[in-house]
Amino acid sequence: MTALASIENQNIAALMRDMGINAREASLKLAQVPSEPKTAALKAAARKLRENADVILAANARDMEAGRAKGLTPALLDRLALDPTRIESMASGVEAVADLPDPVGRELARWSPERNGLDIARVSVPLGVIGIIYESRPNVTADAGAMCIKSGNAAILRGGSESFHSSRAIFDCMLAGILEAGLPEHALQMIPVTDRAAVGEMLKLSDYIDVIVPRGGKSLIARITDESRIPLFKHLEGLCHTYIHASADQSKVVDIVVNAKMRRTGICGATETILIDQAVADDLLPKIAAALADKGCELRGDAHAQKVDARILPATDEDWVTEYLDAIVSIKVINGVNEAVSHINTYGSHHTDAILAEDADATATFLNGVDSGIVIVNASTQFADGGEFGMGAEIGISTGKLHARGPVGVEQLTSYKYIVRGTGQTRP
Amino acid sequence: MTALASIENQNIAALMRDMGINAREASLKLAQVPSEPKTAALKAAARKLRENADVILAANARDMEAGRAKGLTPALLDRLALDPTRIESMASGVEAVADLPDPVGRELARWSPERNGLDIARVSVPLGVIGIIYESRPNVTADAGAMCIKSGNAAILRGGSESFHSSRAIFDCMLAGILEAGLPEHALQMIPVTDRAAVGEMLKLSDYIDVIVPRGGKSLIARITDESRIPLFKHLEGLCHTYIHASADQSKVVDIVVNAKMRRTGICGATETILIDQAVADDLLPKIAAALADKGCELRGDAHAQKVDARILPATDEDWVTEYLDAIVSIKVINGVNEAVSHINTYGSHHTDAILAEDADATATFLNGVDSGIVIVNASTQFADGGEFGMGAEIGISTGKLHARGPVGVEQLTSYKYIVRGTGQTRP
Repeated sequence: MTALASIENQNIAALMRDMGINAREASLKLAQVPSEPKTAALKAAARKLRENADVILAANARDMEAGRAKGLTPALLDRLALDPTRIESMASGVEAVADLPDPVGRELARWSPERNGLDIARVSVPLGVIGIIYESRPNVTADAGAMCIKSGNAAILRGGSESFHSSRAIFDCMLAGILEAGLPEHALQMIPVTDRAAVGEMLKLSDYIDVIVPRGGKSLIARITDESRIPLFKHLEGLCHTYIHASADQSKVVDIVVNAKMRRTGICGATETILIDQAVADDLLPKIAAALADKGCELRGDAHAQKVDARILPATDEDWVTEYLDAIVSIKVINGVNEAVSHINTYGSHHTDAILAEDADATATFLNGVDSGIVIVNASTQFADGGEFGMGAEIGISTGKLHARGPVGVEQLTSYKYIVRGTGQTRP
Repeated sequence: MTALASIENQNIAALMRDMGINAREASLKLAQVPSEPKTAALKAAARKLRENADVILAANARDMEAGRAKGLTPALLDRLALDPTRIESMASGVEAVADLPDPVGRELARWSPERNGLDIARVSVPLGVIGIIYESRPNVTADAGAMCIKSGNAAILRGGSESFHSSRAIFDCMLAGILEAGLPEHALQMIPVTDRAAVGEMLKLSDYIDVIVPRGGKSLIARITDESRIPLFKHLEGLCHTYIHASADQSKVVDIVVNAKMRRTGICGATETILIDQAVADDLLPKIAAALADKGCELRGDAHAQKVDARILPATDEDWVTEYLDAIVSIKVINGVNEAVSHINTYGSHHTDAILAEDADATATFLNGVDSGIVIVNASTQFADGGEFGMGAEIGISTGKLHARGPVGVEQLTSYKYIVRGTGQTRP
């Protein structure tokens, strides 16, 4: 298949439908492929990425030139840019996924009900067909593609138009690996046009796509949520909190809070709001404020916080619901763990929230009460990451509760079926 | 709250929104309730159902009278009808759910990544708020309500208008049990109006309802799928197949096939299509046809099947995609397990499919290849049932692949959260 810049609009619906049909067909075959060929395909793909580094860099140069001409921001250009180090890291990422245990075919449970003597097993199977819609980062082509193949899912990739040539060059390497290992050709497909209409048509393919993983900013996810009838693994905001309980070990607080906020401000596990118990605010808040200000963090707080430390600017109601993704933090002085739980459940995004405490009761109340995918005690919220969780790789962090919650690794890209073995039973 | 026949349309949106807000609030409390009060609530509810049997029967008499006046079919009237036996079975069903192990708070996995020494646990938690939309069977009020409470979920119930008074009387007993045990008042709510607009408003409450379980026929599910942005546990068609492989133990075939088709023809696990290998069709098909015809089953088959047995009428293409839910079966003579897998994946509904075979390779090909929630070897498809699976109770059988597949018991009404325990770790 050749990469096309654009095709007639009326053909896009037909193109997408064909891709859906091909993906479904490939997924049924891929579901039955044992571990070895899947691993071999990914190892071969990693090799092809290394061998074709110059081709990928040339394609990336085209995208970068177009991006600069289009006036993309430096941040977007940085996301788009590839270099030999980034290509090597992509290749070794694909190898790391290849080396994960096969998530398919695991016996999750097995039992035999007394009433009928059937032998019932719950066994993991691939989800089927996964659609990945992403923005400018071309490496998602390799990362997400590898995770889908490893988990036995056919995938349809739709990269951002800015990274079209880079993604296409990476995709070609992935496909070459797949073909070399004898996997179905349509196990991995990439939409060969940049037309925006293709996304709309893709979202209609509920007969052929089992789940869509949107990888991008709020507006992308909002559009997909609005248009799609296909279930999504939504990675929404990470409006994370760190709550400092009165019993917190004061020797740890400043380090953890600074890491949670400032290690990297642009990731979803970064803390956006600090809640601190009144009982320790006078003592601790100035130290925290000083350490954060030292790192260049802007501080916004409620009236009480401002009274404690002059560096703290006034926060508005908007601050409690804002994911800054920047060197800004909001600070609220509160009165105990129940207020913390209530604030987080009201204003948070159900992603990751931490308590710093030594008191067992307060900790239990927090861990049980906070309705988030990840709740942490005495560590940085920035640990919210599939790699740190030992999952090897993640396709995103789900803030939904259905199917996958928290980091979505290859295991979360599987479903299950029940295999029932009888010896002639009929139901009374 | 008083049961109202109807209210102003403009108030329905506000009413539903209030119910959503109350449900969310109750769900956060209910999620933290330990096992005992939940069990006590359901035991009390069962007692209330028994104590108020006469009230329920009087309410049911009102519904039955209105149903007859409205000209409901005998089948619908039978679904609607309650008697002391049905009420007792409802009460003991609620007690059975009460006695299930608590599905919340199970430690599903626990590990500690070497790289950071964190202690990570995956622990089951309730989904949150579940919406149940059902048709005329009033017992769903008790069954589904009990399963939601057991699994720590707040529920909003919407029963069919024909069973409004019966469902309401049952609901009152459930609520009395909940209040007696001190659970949050809004843990279980029932929409107090019969207006169709209430369903539309309910489907908009994606901020407050986590999942909707539609319990009803195709048109109900189609409407909900079309209107809803809330994830569904869809129980679609059960277009189930029984495939007789050439290696099948002939002494078992007739019994299993007759049970699979005729034990109860109206349930989703009933076989609708028989596939039979050419090699054994001449021998076995007349015996199967005779036994089914004996039970009053109409037989429709392809040309080959008709040649083998004169009782078999011609099948059209429509037959392969029809869930009869009646004493009719379609029969196709095929050539081996791969054709069976391909037919089932093309025409089936991914619900439950069986192979009758002694050959291990054919069995493995079938079990791996058929893309259905339940695949069975050498037993009746009518075992597709949460009770038969030992789950105690089911809220439906999911034909989707996300989150819950196959019978949906109380465990499937939970999600999980990650609890991460640290000792001061910051992320490098």
